[in-house]
Amino acid sequence: IISNNDKEITALFSEVHFADIAEVLDEVNFEEAIYIIKLLDSEKTSEILTELDEDTREKILKNLSAKEIADEVREMDTDDAADIIGELSKERQHRVISALEDDDHAADIKELLSYNDNSAGALMAKELVKVYETWTVAGCMRRIRGQAKDVTRVHSIYVVDKEDKLVGRMSLKDLIIAKSDHKIADICKAKVDAVNVHQNDEEVAKIMAKYDLEAIPVVDDNNVLVGRITIDDILDVIREEADKDYQMAAGFSQDVEADDTIWELTKARLPWLILALFGGFISVSVLGSFDNAINTFPELFFFTPLIAAMAGNVGVQSSAIIVQGLANDSLKGSLFKRLLKEILQGLLNGFVLAALLMSAGMLFLGFPLDLGITVAASLISVIIIASIIGTFIPIILAKKGIDPALATGPFITTSNDILGILIYFSIAKLVLGF
Amino acid sequence: IISNNDKEITALFSEVHFADIAEVLDEVNFEEAIYIIKLLDSEKTSEILTELDEDTREKILKNLSAKEIADEVREMDTDDAADIIGELSKERQHRVISALEDDDHAADIKELLSYNDNSAGALMAKELVKVYETWTVAGCMRRIRGQAKDVTRVHSIYVVDKEDKLVGRMSLKDLIIAKSDHKIADICKAKVDAVNVHQNDEEVAKIMAKYDLEAIPVVDDNNVLVGRITIDDILDVIREEADKDYQMAAGFSQDVEADDTIWELTKARLPWLILALFGGFISVSVLGSFDNAINTFPELFFFTPLIAAMAGNVGVQSSAIIVQGLANDSLKGSLFKRLLKEILQGLLNGFVLAALLMSAGMLFLGFPLDLGITVAASLISVIIIASIIGTFIPIILAKKGIDPALATGPFITTSNDILGILIYFSIAKLVLGF
Repeated sequence: IISNNDKEITALFSEVHFADIAEVLDEVNFEEAIYIIKLLDSEKTSEILTELDEDTREKILKNLSAKEIADEVREMDTDDAADIIGELSKERQHRVISALEDDDHAADIKELLSYNDNSAGALMAKELVKVYETWTVAGCMRRIRGQAKDVTRVHSIYVVDKEDKLVGRMSLKDLIIAKSDHKIADICKAKVDAVNVHQNDEEVAKIMAKYDLEAIPVVDDNNVLVGRITIDDILDVIREEADKDYQMAAGFSQDVEADDTIWELTKARLPWLILALFGGFISVSVLGSFDNAINTFPELFFFTPLIAAMAGNVGVQSSAIIVQGLANDSLKGSLFKRLLKEILQGLLNGFVLAALLMSAGMLFLGFPLDLGITVAASLISVIIIASIIGTFIPIILAKKGIDPALATGPFITTSNDILGILIYFSIAKLVLGF
Repeated sequence: IISNNDKEITALFSEVHFADIAEVLDEVNFEEAIYIIKLLDSEKTSEILTELDEDTREKILKNLSAKEIADEVREMDTDDAADIIGELSKERQHRVISALEDDDHAADIKELLSYNDNSAGALMAKELVKVYETWTVAGCMRRIRGQAKDVTRVHSIYVVDKEDKLVGRMSLKDLIIAKSDHKIADICKAKVDAVNVHQNDEEVAKIMAKYDLEAIPVVDDNNVLVGRITIDDILDVIREEADKDYQMAAGFSQDVEADDTIWELTKARLPWLILALFGGFISVSVLGSFDNAINTFPELFFFTPLIAAMAGNVGVQSSAIIVQGLANDSLKGSLFKRLLKEILQGLLNGFVLAALLMSAGMLFLGFPLDLGITVAASLISVIIIASIIGTFIPIILAKKGIDPALATGPFITTSNDILGILIYFSIAKLVLGF
């Protein structure tokens, strides 16, 4: 790159898949990336741009004029074009769209930009193959030859009536197998899954995954066909959703990547840490309120981190099961049954762990029996209560429309820490009487 | 169902999508499920079986004879058939396969069963559309009409030479657009991504996601075309992988679902809890070894859960970033840079949190300055060290071929708890001199 031999670079990259070039551009320094983008022809660079990491793309787009961006966007499918234009400022969005020569393309992109983020409308592409039910197979083949050139992948051919309302679908295969004088209305499948343009993208993902669909048509409130969503877009939705749950469980307040700046990372990490610190401060006060026990039973204080940690671990386990169950729609049975099940599990786990703890404490640390019983009874109570809280918090969050994955984060751990310590010392006070 | 009116049930279900029937069967009791399966025709039930929850399916298959299972399997694509037969005992596998009338289908299934779990071979289907490079477009169309009937979805047409080695691919669209007297060799794309039959399924998922492929051909070591993998199978791989990471982070030792039995759930939860208990026990000993401080500085002991919790939270955050980075192949830069970055973040987070803690402690709890300094300095040290450990454990695990997601589970939290307490009291001893 340093030698600036343009021809060589062009030749080198012409053989390489755009996804691989995108990876290279994510790695090289910024001037080099701009240089390469400007060097290659727009057919290739438009594909590269869609594959780039969001941060890299943002930097590159800043350095291209509205005209240059319009040239890139012209080559893209409407959904990719709308995604990229959507990342620009409102003012630049207008400039880029008016720089587009093809008015239809510009109108399609504008329409896609008008839908809410996370709706089927924002996810769909306008490119699709559409035929009227009154056409014959032969006529259809002729027209599809025209339409299909604009569509990267023909998954399904959508059949509409004269008002553009969706009435059926068929595959290219069906068309090839059919006799050429048949009417489309006779050979198409009348039952077709479709989603509404305002439907949430996670719901769309669930429907497509459940019915193993590779593309789904999108209709407006009048059942007019307005676009289609393909499985590769859904793949991104599923992955983002999984990443989000994972990051929430790990305690981030926003989407982060390993290569974000220290400042971005700190912004995502610090809020939860401050919450955890606040929780920790409450646990300090709780412990402080039992300080009259410190001279008679110092061992009690040695066990607080253990009890708190067990409460946290058990709570996260219980929450994670519910969060996954909610995500897969696989939660069955009544709340009461679930409660009973958690209590039984808590008892089972609690007894095993308490037995281990009590025997270890009495054997290795020479605990008196009453202290052993206190610690063991506390452990069982704390485990049962942490299980119940861990189970119900995500269910309650989901009912209130909050992402239940929030429960697996430091929130549950911290609350369970505090509650665990409180229960532990209350039981100790009861048994040991200080 | 109770009325046992067979005709009505058949009529009712004939209009319903098999994925929905599968959901119903997962809910109803077991005799009813068997009854419905035996009632419906095998074309429908074979689809239902592939959609059922694994546990429900296992129970149903137990109650069908080898002949009945073979009838179901006959209607399935080879990959689904192999998945279902693979769940049976070795001895029943043989009986079902020999009950299959179609020898080719049986041989294909046997071949698929012979590949390692989690390999491309175990994931692929034998059904695909294959043409020879020497054919003409017209001849190709004729033969595809025959082949395509067996293939649910034609994504790509794979072009092979006379030794069945993969030489190219094209889409149905390419074929329809082409002139009928052209040779296939002239119109097909010679560059085709393929995976080896022994390649790991997660690698296949990464390749397909990166290049936005909807199907990928699978070749053996001699580049002979042996099958193809479609995106819907990859969807399952990605989801399973995400679920696995999530469950590891939450502290399960095996795959669980909310509706598993109490026994299965306990088996998955207890191992990590015992490990955490063992870790907790070490923290008890560490605290016990500093017991001479308990009379002079009892407040120190009130802060142990706070310090331990902060160490755990910070460690999990650091690990989660690395685990995600490793999963997306987005970790760039040297180890040294990453180390520096973590230390800087730790310092930044640590100072903010320590300042909050120190002022709160001195204001509300009336701490003397030296105790405030001790707690604050410990918090900063603990956060930095937990960040470093959280960063490097997953990297080391990945290098040793162990799933790095293990690091986000109770393992890191527990180690950081212990280490945090040790650092805290060591600093306290240094500053306060007890």
